[in-house]
Amino acid sequence: MRTVVLSGFMATGKSTIGRLVAEKLGLPFLDTDAILAEEVGRPVGEIFAAEGEARFRDHEARIIQPLLADGVPRVLSFGGGSMTIPRVRHAALEAATVVTLTATPETIAARVPSPTDRPNLGAASVLDRARDLIALRREVYGECHASIATDGRAPEEIAACIVELARRDTVAIPLGVRSYVVELTHGRPDVLGAALKELAPSSIVTVTDENLVTMRGAWLDAALASLGLRETRIVLSPGEANKTLASISRIWDAALSEGVDRQAVVVAFGGGVAGDLAGFAASTLLRGVRCVQVPTSLLSMVDSSVGGKTGFDHAAGKNLLGAFFQPSRVVIDLEHLKTLPPRERRAGLAEVVKIALVREPPLLELLESRAEAIARGDRDVLRDVVRASVIAKMRVVREDEHETGARALLNLGHTLGHALESHGGYARWLHGEAVAIGTVLEIAAAERLGLTPAGTSERAASLFERFGLPTTVDLATVDAAWPYVMSDKKRTLSAVKLPVVTGPGEGRVERVELDALRAAVTGAE
Amino acid sequence: MRTVVLSGFMATGKSTIGRLVAEKLGLPFLDTDAILAEEVGRPVGEIFAAEGEARFRDHEARIIQPLLADGVPRVLSFGGGSMTIPRVRHAALEAATVVTLTATPETIAARVPSPTDRPNLGAASVLDRARDLIALRREVYGECHASIATDGRAPEEIAACIVELARRDTVAIPLGVRSYVVELTHGRPDVLGAALKELAPSSIVTVTDENLVTMRGAWLDAALASLGLRETRIVLSPGEANKTLASISRIWDAALSEGVDRQAVVVAFGGGVAGDLAGFAASTLLRGVRCVQVPTSLLSMVDSSVGGKTGFDHAAGKNLLGAFFQPSRVVIDLEHLKTLPPRERRAGLAEVVKIALVREPPLLELLESRAEAIARGDRDVLRDVVRASVIAKMRVVREDEHETGARALLNLGHTLGHALESHGGYARWLHGEAVAIGTVLEIAAAERLGLTPAGTSERAASLFERFGLPTTVDLATVDAAWPYVMSDKKRTLSAVKLPVVTGPGEGRVERVELDALRAAVTGAE
Repeated sequence: MRTVVLSGFMATGKSTIGRLVAEKLGLPFLDTDAILAEEVGRPVGEIFAAEGEARFRDHEARIIQPLLADGVPRVLSFGGGSMTIPRVRHAALEAATVVTLTATPETIAARVPSPTDRPNLGAASVLDRARDLIALRREVYGECHASIATDGRAPEEIAACIVELARRDTVAIPLGVRSYVVELTHGRPDVLGAALKELAPSSIVTVTDENLVTMRGAWLDAALASLGLRETRIVLSPGEANKTLASISRIWDAALSEGVDRQAVVVAFGGGVAGDLAGFAASTLLRGVRCVQVPTSLLSMVDSSVGGKTGFDHAAGKNLLGAFFQPSRVVIDLEHLKTLPPRERRAGLAEVVKIALVREPPLLELLESRAEAIARGDRDVLRDVVRASVIAKMRVVREDEHETGARALLNLGHTLGHALESHGGYARWLHGEAVAIGTVLEIAAAERLGLTPAGTSERAASLFERFGLPTTVDLATVDAAWPYVMSDKKRTLSAVKLPVVTGPGEGRVERVELDALRAAVTGAE
Repeated sequence: MRTVVLSGFMATGKSTIGRLVAEKLGLPFLDTDAILAEEVGRPVGEIFAAEGEARFRDHEARIIQPLLADGVPRVLSFGGGSMTIPRVRHAALEAATVVTLTATPETIAARVPSPTDRPNLGAASVLDRARDLIALRREVYGECHASIATDGRAPEEIAACIVELARRDTVAIPLGVRSYVVELTHGRPDVLGAALKELAPSSIVTVTDENLVTMRGAWLDAALASLGLRETRIVLSPGEANKTLASISRIWDAALSEGVDRQAVVVAFGGGVAGDLAGFAASTLLRGVRCVQVPTSLLSMVDSSVGGKTGFDHAAGKNLLGAFFQPSRVVIDLEHLKTLPPRERRAGLAEVVKIALVREPPLLELLESRAEAIARGDRDVLRDVVRASVIAKMRVVREDEHETGARALLNLGHTLGHALESHGGYARWLHGEAVAIGTVLEIAAAERLGLTPAGTSERAASLFERFGLPTTVDLATVDAAWPYVMSDKKRTLSAVKLPVVTGPGEGRVERVELDALRAAVTGAE
């Protein structure tokens, strides 16, 4: 059980409901405002007024951060503005299940006596001030595991909801009003059913592929059966070769001929290809309907289902057309991995190694210390790896949703990996295999260019090999694949933005001349 | 000359630069913080600390609002948080040219002594607090006519920029970090050239049509010539019949075969069709490149170029595929209207009448009082009508970017209008003509259903007729077009969300059963 944080505007019932939740969960309850008042020896309203908002927020951060860091589960009721402090917000979302309680400005004005002792509401019109502040904090309050409207509902009923939420294994992807959660489970189609119910769709458009229908169709049917909704199912041929406009058109035609409306939900049930296609189709149907990603391959669980990159391939290159379109929910059932061919499971680990190498020292340690258990598919270790990978991906996406900066780090291994894939006609290597080779080649090249410490490529190669992934390719193939590097969409004129590893679990993006890169890659052979 | 407002975080130089701008423009300079301090008789820092932020914002709003409402041009320097008050922000953006001055948190921390007397920065770490507050206000500060980074630049140089900005005729479309400006001009291709230069594109992708190239190609060439950039030009066949995936594919193929990168800018040069196609192509190329809308028809100037609706038609209906994707700039040169066929100019007025009927009493008055001058294309009146229409559209989009509420009002006349257009094969009527007929039919139906005051449809019809627009159609055509109403994407099951006029310049959206609507429309014939 993780800590539960109740956040939200003043007078939304955080303390009352928090006490009920703590009682039901058998956890201690703490009101961070009350702790602060006791510590300073005066009411928080007075502290705020006397010391100013800046110092008040410092107090809050000082009190809250240790409560989130010590690993002891509790129920915490935050102050109305605590989540406006980014370091508090990020820590809370990573360490706890955060529930935002909401109420309309009218409800809040009715609940707060006027004139009030709450300094942030002491305006001529409490209603206007509540409306303004809620608008100003819309993006902040949007970042949570769940948001519950309290207007006209009994505290007991809300507390019961929160208890149910607290028992879920979820990672929040905080992107302002476009935030969503990734839910992990095992052998529980009802989790998808419940997630869809919460979205109250008018109908379902499922995008999947023939293999998945054979292997996991029963799970999908079980998930959707209880909804009693009209389902339009588009079953694509599997494989990267089908990540085309023709597949997108099939989804569009099927959905529109069924007359879907804006309350429809697209369910992407499959690996990266189905997810990218379904996400893009959802982003464009009626100018955007909601999408739920249900990744079934390890690769899509740890990488492509989170972060909102959608799209398809064009004759001129891979992923050249698409959109950034965040899903409304991601449901990861690890049971799907049971039927995943071992080669595909291994390939999925390539993206995990990649993100660990440039961003996540603890994940790198986990991978290196448990490589054998991971390689043989140990259920519990794999779940930890998937969760850690989703959190790693979340940290990148939180910083840089549209890949203008930090997110470009995740292209490690992809400049060469994509070129190899294209050259191989998407048949010789799986995506993850090409990424493993590309990662080792790129790190070795960066070593030669003096951008990466010596020995890094060897460490990476050794880890990939423990997972049974390829790490080398002959020079003639690199030469033959080189033209595809030139058409990579991250290209700016004669150079590429190359992610380079600068230490264990650390990296940055460097602009590297294509000629220099080629010489370094070739020399590294 | 409009008032100039300098906004932005504390220590970005608002007062220093404001004084310089006022001097250059020969306008009075007022620092709203200074006015407040003088009025209350103590420094603003003390007022903030003593009365709390809520009362402080009340003070600010009380001082600022009359200065924006009296029509006297001034240079105003705002407090750092003044624009966080939505009513102040909306008033400033409508009445003034708002320039946000920015600085990095590091620059601000270096400029502000620590410990500081500024209550909002009085934290242990001024740097952290500045970073947090700037992040919290990112959406607010994004809403402006222009944003200028002050780091390392001389006040004189920044003031000269602002003077140039103040002379432009622009309307800001405030959508947080996706805000942009619509610039109005007459016979000035260099305005587009300058706008593009500000965006610093790597290359240009122009989407236009054959008619425009013939009529206005010289203007376009003049605008682009000074940039010295590679231009990929896609010249489509004109007309709604070409608003198809095939046209989108032509744009994709041309741009990608030229190897555009993410810094490319798509220029939409044409009417609504070119704008919708170019905007959608831009939203999907490399998951999104910037787009500048250059509407050349009256219809696209007053309606489709602003607000970010992009897309194309599908066999199942009009505009069923697309995206909400805001442009980076809109440049309206009214000279383009010179070569617009009179029938198209008249059709463009239909959308103006529509928005006036449901939302804008003053615009409705302007249209009714100056109908003849407008109908004959009087240059100055037309510019006023276009500006007022853009502002009207902005007010709707500001409230409801993704058409989940208020924006649906703008569908007045479109439920039946689209059906008539589809039935007519997009050949019998221009879009605006179909909307004129649809608007009158829908209002008459709403009158019969008791949702709209009697006489409204007559008033609307009379205005449309003064602009030379059709307002009637025979019953057999309505019957024949009815199946297309059923496939409208705003449909939810057996009913439509119908915008209804509730008074002069006022409306709301009502759920109306399709059967009831059909009976009312038919009965109205």
